Amino acid sequence: MRHLSDYMPFILKKENIARIEGDEVLIGNRSLYPFEKSFFRCRETEDVAWAIEKMVTQGGGPVRAAMQAMLLLAKRMDEGRLPRDPARFAQAKERLEKTRPTNTTMARVLELMVSAIQESLGKGACCGERAGAFIATYESRYEERAFAMADIGSSLIDDGDGVLTMCFAETSFILTIALAMEQGKRIKVYTPETRPYLQGARLTAPCLEEIGADVTLITDNMPAYLMSQGKIQKYMTAVDIAVSDGWVANKIGTYQNAISAAFHGIPYFPFSGDPDMRKVGRDSIIIERRDPEEVKHLRGLATTTDTMKAYYPAFDIVPPHLIAGIITPKGLISPYLLKRVYGEGESAL
Amino acid sequence: MRHLSDYMPFILKKENIARIEGDEVLIGNRSLYPFEKSFFRCRETEDVAWAIEKMVTQGGGPVRAAMQAMLLLAKRMDEGRLPRDPARFAQAKERLEKTRPTNTTMARVLELMVSAIQESLGKGACCGERAGAFIATYESRYEERAFAMADIGSSLIDDGDGVLTMCFAETSFILTIALAMEQGKRIKVYTPETRPYLQGARLTAPCLEEIGADVTLITDNMPAYLMSQGKIQKYMTAVDIAVSDGWVANKIGTYQNAISAAFHGIPYFPFSGDPDMRKVGRDSIIIERRDPEEVKHLRGLATTTDTMKAYYPAFDIVPPHLIAGIITPKGLISPYLLKRVYGEGESAL
Repeated sequence: MRHLSDYMPFILKKENIARIEGDEVLIGNRSLYPFEKSFFRCRETEDVAWAIEKMVTQGGGPVRAAMQAMLLLAKRMDEGRLPRDPARFAQAKERLEKTRPTNTTMARVLELMVSAIQESLGKGACCGERAGAFIATYESRYEERAFAMADIGSSLIDDGDGVLTMCFAETSFILTIALAMEQGKRIKVYTPETRPYLQGARLTAPCLEEIGADVTLITDNMPAYLMSQGKIQKYMTAVDIAVSDGWVANKIGTYQNAISAAFHGIPYFPFSGDPDMRKVGRDSIIIERRDPEEVKHLRGLATTTDTMKAYYPAFDIVPPHLIAGIITPKGLISPYLLKRVYGEGESAL
Repeated sequence: MRHLSDYMPFILKKENIARIEGDEVLIGNRSLYPFEKSFFRCRETEDVAWAIEKMVTQGGGPVRAAMQAMLLLAKRMDEGRLPRDPARFAQAKERLEKTRPTNTTMARVLELMVSAIQESLGKGACCGERAGAFIATYESRYEERAFAMADIGSSLIDDGDGVLTMCFAETSFILTIALAMEQGKRIKVYTPETRPYLQGARLTAPCLEEIGADVTLITDNMPAYLMSQGKIQKYMTAVDIAVSDGWVANKIGTYQNAISAAFHGIPYFPFSGDPDMRKVGRDSIIIERRDPEEVKHLRGLATTTDTMKAYYPAFDIVPPHLIAGIITPKGLISPYLLKRVYGEGESAL
């Protein structure tokens, strides 16, 4: 029996993503990592929402933090410290899901979680227990899906490969690399730094370094040059969302790397644990636009004049013809078959 | 009569690129711009070489700084403060040209300048005067070529265009934008920040802001997304070198933007004031590899762990089939015609 936690670096261990301690939600502070290993403490749902908006956690972190926020509310109700009002969960859900317009996983998970909690609330049952059980089931399915995807991912990597990634592809990708290494494959991973938040430099590269992988940090303007030198054989990223027509959205930069990969004959394999088949096409993807000030700074240091205009679309969208196959828990799927395999209108959670 | 200085922002005015003051060469310190407008003071040729290596100046700056270093040597000889030894110039040339292996302009200019100075030295003439005249001629030809290229560049820009650039395309590009604006064209310029040195954020964007252009700063991972949104109609950069088979080398990232431009049907027009036809093909281009530590920092601030491995190729190479035409002082030239127009084996200075 394989255990996810045996493979995961510090920030991807589930207790370090988000957990409850005392009467607070603690969120692993990815915005300070690897310079500090610290936790952001939240007393209220609003604190959790604020932390997500401020990028204290990102990628797959927000859904985990949001579930803990729901659990905290449920526990407080059980302890009689909050009125047993089902609307509180709906309000919390509404506030939390607004923090991430592009990635719909949190909204979909919270919808199921709130229904479950409200049901137990209606029966007068202990809703903290229900919330806890929901999280446990989610974690266990998440672990199963991660191994299913990483088994495929690692089988796609050949001995001697150079693998390019982008942003922080988290569990599925880190596990893919860990399994490929376990299989005795000698691989090199190239990680673009991923401006402006440096998820590649601060999260992906240190996580890979922690598990002993051969990782090299590059800047976001280098991937195509490395491809032209024959250093890259596979391109793999997470996605924030995969929709029914096979388009995927991920951190800005994913798209141009996919174009360069296609130009050099390098296959692009995005991971999607939970394609959103309720989104009927690429036009239904909402690209989050963040504060342009963030483009003008790095770790608080200015990169240009105060008066400069800037633009910050946080994600981009890759068309299916640039995708060799989407790595899902159900197998490696052609993006053109996604809606047939997952069923149009399905949430796939 | 148009004068280049009337169009140029602060750091591109010739006296702010490099000049002699007293017994020193002053180099406009681009590494601190726009946060500080300061000059790096050099007493010896070695100081100038060091400053170039440390990116105090870059792009078209090093050749100007190197010519001033030669002038300083010549003046000191005229004043009897240095022996009238022609080998001194050859040694200085050798040291200076090593600072920039990719861009051969400085090496080619210094070859001509050293011959001229040595000739006047052989005749017992005042070699400072000869060096000064050489620089004056260079500046005047540079100005002519800049207007020739910017006249073409601005004619290629249509009213309403979005123009993408990369790194710091200096005089020809800034002048192109200035002339297009003078022609009443409403244009938007998008400037990728250009990690790790941020030439885009620190130099290009502030220069465009200074001349009143509508400029927007983006990160290096955004160009393709902007293209997919229809925001970009033209892609224009400088080149560090154009060689006889029509390949061009420029700051890392230029290549992947060119691939994305081709993918979206957007023409790429690089500027080359002095194609190097003595380089017989792309394999003769030397890509400068810089200290990987630079990739791990931004303005001195760490972006990852101290122990991380990184890679820093400073330039990349674009093939002719991704180039719509090279903007040269002799006109807009197909990269496939470059050697016919310029003559194989010619230095084109």
